[in-house]
Amino acid sequence: MIKITFPDGAVREYENGSSALDIAKSISEGLAKKVLAASVNGEVWDATRPIYNDAILKLLTWNDAEGKSTFWHSSAHLMAEAVESLFDGVKFWVGPPVENGFYYDMDLGGKQITEDDLRKLETKMAELAKKNEVYVRKEMPKAEAVKYFAEKGDEYKLDLLQNLKDGEITFYTQGNFTDLCRGPHIPNTGFIKAIKLTNIAGAYWKGDEKNKQLTRIYGVTYPSQKELDEYLQMLEEAKKRDHRKLGKELGIYTMNDDIGQGLILWMPNGTVIIEELEKLAKETELAAGYKRVVTPHIAKENLYITSGHLPYYADSMFPPMEMDGEKYYLKAMNCPHHHKIFDAELKSYRDMPYRIAEYGTCYRYEQSGELFGLMRVRCLHMNDAHIYCSKEQFAAEFKAVNDMYLKYFKIFGIDKYVMRLSLHDPAKLGEKYINEPELWLQTEELVRNVMKEANIPFVEVKGEGAFYGPKIDVQIWSTIGREFTLATNQVDFAQGRRFKLSFTNKNNEPEIPLIIHRAPLGTHERFIGFLLEHYAGKFPTWLAPVQVKILPISDKFMDYAQTVLQSLKKADIRAEVDDRSEKIGKKIRDTELAKVPYMLVIGEKEMNEGKVSIRRQGKGDLGAKNIDEFVAEISNEIKERI
Amino acid sequence: MIKITFPDGAVREYENGSSALDIAKSISEGLAKKVLAASVNGEVWDATRPIYNDAILKLLTWNDAEGKSTFWHSSAHLMAEAVESLFDGVKFWVGPPVENGFYYDMDLGGKQITEDDLRKLETKMAELAKKNEVYVRKEMPKAEAVKYFAEKGDEYKLDLLQNLKDGEITFYTQGNFTDLCRGPHIPNTGFIKAIKLTNIAGAYWKGDEKNKQLTRIYGVTYPSQKELDEYLQMLEEAKKRDHRKLGKELGIYTMNDDIGQGLILWMPNGTVIIEELEKLAKETELAAGYKRVVTPHIAKENLYITSGHLPYYADSMFPPMEMDGEKYYLKAMNCPHHHKIFDAELKSYRDMPYRIAEYGTCYRYEQSGELFGLMRVRCLHMNDAHIYCSKEQFAAEFKAVNDMYLKYFKIFGIDKYVMRLSLHDPAKLGEKYINEPELWLQTEELVRNVMKEANIPFVEVKGEGAFYGPKIDVQIWSTIGREFTLATNQVDFAQGRRFKLSFTNKNNEPEIPLIIHRAPLGTHERFIGFLLEHYAGKFPTWLAPVQVKILPISDKFMDYAQTVLQSLKKADIRAEVDDRSEKIGKKIRDTELAKVPYMLVIGEKEMNEGKVSIRRQGKGDLGAKNIDEFVAEISNEIKERI
Repeated sequence: MIKITFPDGAVREYENGSSALDIAKSISEGLAKKVLAASVNGEVWDATRPIYNDAILKLLTWNDAEGKSTFWHSSAHLMAEAVESLFDGVKFWVGPPVENGFYYDMDLGGKQITEDDLRKLETKMAELAKKNEVYVRKEMPKAEAVKYFAEKGDEYKLDLLQNLKDGEITFYTQGNFTDLCRGPHIPNTGFIKAIKLTNIAGAYWKGDEKNKQLTRIYGVTYPSQKELDEYLQMLEEAKKRDHRKLGKELGIYTMNDDIGQGLILWMPNGTVIIEELEKLAKETELAAGYKRVVTPHIAKENLYITSGHLPYYADSMFPPMEMDGEKYYLKAMNCPHHHKIFDAELKSYRDMPYRIAEYGTCYRYEQSGELFGLMRVRCLHMNDAHIYCSKEQFAAEFKAVNDMYLKYFKIFGIDKYVMRLSLHDPAKLGEKYINEPELWLQTEELVRNVMKEANIPFVEVKGEGAFYGPKIDVQIWSTIGREFTLATNQVDFAQGRRFKLSFTNKNNEPEIPLIIHRAPLGTHERFIGFLLEHYAGKFPTWLAPVQVKILPISDKFMDYAQTVLQSLKKADIRAEVDDRSEKIGKKIRDTELAKVPYMLVIGEKEMNEGKVSIRRQGKGDLGAKNIDEFVAEISNEIKERI
Repeated sequence: MIKITFPDGAVREYENGSSALDIAKSISEGLAKKVLAASVNGEVWDATRPIYNDAILKLLTWNDAEGKSTFWHSSAHLMAEAVESLFDGVKFWVGPPVENGFYYDMDLGGKQITEDDLRKLETKMAELAKKNEVYVRKEMPKAEAVKYFAEKGDEYKLDLLQNLKDGEITFYTQGNFTDLCRGPHIPNTGFIKAIKLTNIAGAYWKGDEKNKQLTRIYGVTYPSQKELDEYLQMLEEAKKRDHRKLGKELGIYTMNDDIGQGLILWMPNGTVIIEELEKLAKETELAAGYKRVVTPHIAKENLYITSGHLPYYADSMFPPMEMDGEKYYLKAMNCPHHHKIFDAELKSYRDMPYRIAEYGTCYRYEQSGELFGLMRVRCLHMNDAHIYCSKEQFAAEFKAVNDMYLKYFKIFGIDKYVMRLSLHDPAKLGEKYINEPELWLQTEELVRNVMKEANIPFVEVKGEGAFYGPKIDVQIWSTIGREFTLATNQVDFAQGRRFKLSFTNKNNEPEIPLIIHRAPLGTHERFIGFLLEHYAGKFPTWLAPVQVKILPISDKFMDYAQTVLQSLKKADIRAEVDDRSEKIGKKIRDTELAKVPYMLVIGEKEMNEGKVSIRRQGKGDLGAKNIDEFVAEISNEIKERI
């Protein structure tokens, strides 16, 4: 018998050689039908693989990231089987799962693959899937594996084998397809109910442009057609809402080769949004007792040795500038600068908690291949602040920060979110994490308790903490259901000591403060990227770069249009007059396209009555109103950030 | 006879060999008494030196910078004569004029000089000055000069002679003192009526710390005792108002060795001032039709080659960061980034003038010895904007910018200012200035005409333009009479073409815009440094970091103090309660020292009547008022920026 420990801590005994699937079946048939793979002592296994020792077991389903990736990896094998049946002599390189789906790189021996072929492949895959073919795992000695592929004349798999040793080599077979593969796989092809091959691309072998170009086919599969349809619809919608497309159309941002990749130039319309977000942050932080500071973007090497950024984080920093015999670095974080401000004046318990905020601009090195629109950049404007507090003050401060997140979610209509408590990995102490095992456990428990007491739903993830302490990562979903990692809330037990920070406590003793790092609005770059998709560019009035467009029906009404404009400007409303000599229909269409929330159409009747005819973007005509009435209404909408 | 051309263009004839002083006398004896030196064909000469050729002549008096520096240089010689009479065997190195006064470096052969000695020297100098000794110029062949100093055993002057050639060597003698000196000098010692030796310092010979340390004596002299007294009083006042001292006391800014010299950390109180200044700038610029942008702090090398910064300005830039095989530079100016924003979207005449503003942060390399508090820094937050316009629009735009300066001067109570039109130097075309002689003359004339038409008083200075065009430098004086160079307003005819910027004009042709660079509030660093001195740290209410301090007479009134605080906060007034258990006298004293504009004293009577007793910083008791009445009054004071 073997002892199996479940995630809830329960321990049960099973016959030696039982598989995760056997164990699932012993619990319920319904559960067994959902099991795609299993985590056995932290390693992902085939659900059907026998277990011969005591183990910690987690059954993996579609709801687990590892369940999904196993499903997609098996789908890649299924696609390869279909390709092999339609394209004679194809040779395969690698076929991994990716964020949404999978791909397989292959050598079609000079044959071209078309969109039509993709449809044929989908049909073939569906046909093969229905056969419920089992993914069979087989270990093989290296010599035998080499012989197999040498006979097949498959130089790609032979290349893969070079880096493998005896005991590491496994083959997987389903139906007529056999592949050199580490696994794991789902129990059988029958789980794959819905299939879409999405894209054909060229990919150099091993990513090296000196090598042969292979054909890469991307696909995505789901356990039901409904889920696939929803996903494809979301993709379709996401394409329309692509922040890069909208960012250009709406004059939000641009980039330029002479300035550099990943360095955003915020155009006037984007800057309006930046300033509105900063206004919101400043108001909120002022009310929550924060003070503001401004710090430079560079510092000397020694600061980042003290902070631990250079020892733990150098890869993400820009290279140094050498000046007057010293190395200066662009800051990747605002914290060390803020610590120096904390330290510039003596502090007592009367000054605590000491909260300082700055929309600080940081520079982080990302590989150029990783850069993506506003989502992955090298220059980040961060909604940063640091709270220095005593241990007794910690719970209240940490909870207040979480409350601030929830307040923002409400303002931006973010209904779906998850807080993820990211912990340290004991195996990486001193390498990825400050080597203070005791303090790690203490602060992790501190944070866990705050979250529990505040009834905030959260999940725990090992090995994703900051190097100086545990953190809460916040995942949010846009209106179309795409997931974004936005903001963090971090506890820091290490830097207070490293920077020799202290305050005089009530017992007249020096005490090292705990530090909370927080950035509820993340960075302007990522948050505005998210908002572009979330609102499809149709910003709520308070955020809209132009809030009102005045559309005179003809030049005759230009003076009245100017009067209306002045009334709006006096109320600090961002308004413009469309003074082109165009037909009103065209003016309305152009303003709709520019996604301006309000249009005021102005003609004879409106002028004579001192009114404006109001059109709401996407909603059409709202009737005529007095100017003052309209100004009062829109001013309230802006003030309340509705 | 020689032809002499005067600054007003008049030409008169004088006898060959007439000196500037002769010419002045021929105009009036009164004028002659004021002449200290003369500019002859652009070179500063002794007023007594004979002129043998036709020349452009400007008589220099105490009102000319060159007049002052000649006066002070002659004073250094007078001091040397006094030192020689009191300290046997002294040897002199160099004795130049400086910004306010002069110094002389000397080798006293191991003798110490004391404050008492300075008083004795002053008396001796006054005695010598009264003798009206003439400064006699004598040219000397090198061999003879070397012989003279070799006999004297003066290794310092011999060292100076090494770098001089025959024909370049002159001696000046007054009374018993003779010095190797290029000159020029004032006619005689009698002009020096008021003398103050201000400081004794050590100075390494040639500034090299491996060399012998010499004694440096600083002094300042004036043509009248009244002027000297005023100057010394101003110095005394400036010491009290030293922005470095006030900046620390009031929690405005700090610096830190680990971050780097010249890199300001703005503390919470300084950040309030920054944000108020930015609010003022944003309001003013919005009303003047500017849009705002945000740009990164770095760019690739190529941008600064295009802009001309690397060819013309590299010494003032930070060294590059090498990344992905490219060089990135911290920006020293915002202009090239703004040009890329102008260029990101097609422009037509309908978009012009296109005005974009940013409180951009720039980095400039200054020698560490040049750094000084907020006045000379390496990181500057600049009140920057660029206006792209057609030639027809230029005059109106340039005038609007000058008007904005005047508006700001009024707000900050700056009564004394001078606009200085800085032009190019034809001799340095292609070296310090873009090599476009025609365009230089055209745009200089354009600017000159705007200034004349707008009746703005200005002076012209050759050789101080930006490398891309002429500029207006604005000199302002603080309330205590110190001069600051604050802001610039520059015309740029070069960068539009270098960056291939264009807009489609009304004739449907591409046209290169003229660019105005302007920064009326200068940089936060220099402007806040100026304001600290200007206001002696007693900021007007709208700028004050804490506007109101509520002082309860005892703990009994703490609840009422909180009520008052909430009323103030609701009206966005920056207020705090002094909740320490201190006597009211101490609370008032501490608040006075912290330079908070208003104190609200709260006791039994105030609580019962719902009032507050108001004290104005520096003015004392203003009597009691209802809370609402006080809030209304101070809100108006803040809004109007009184």
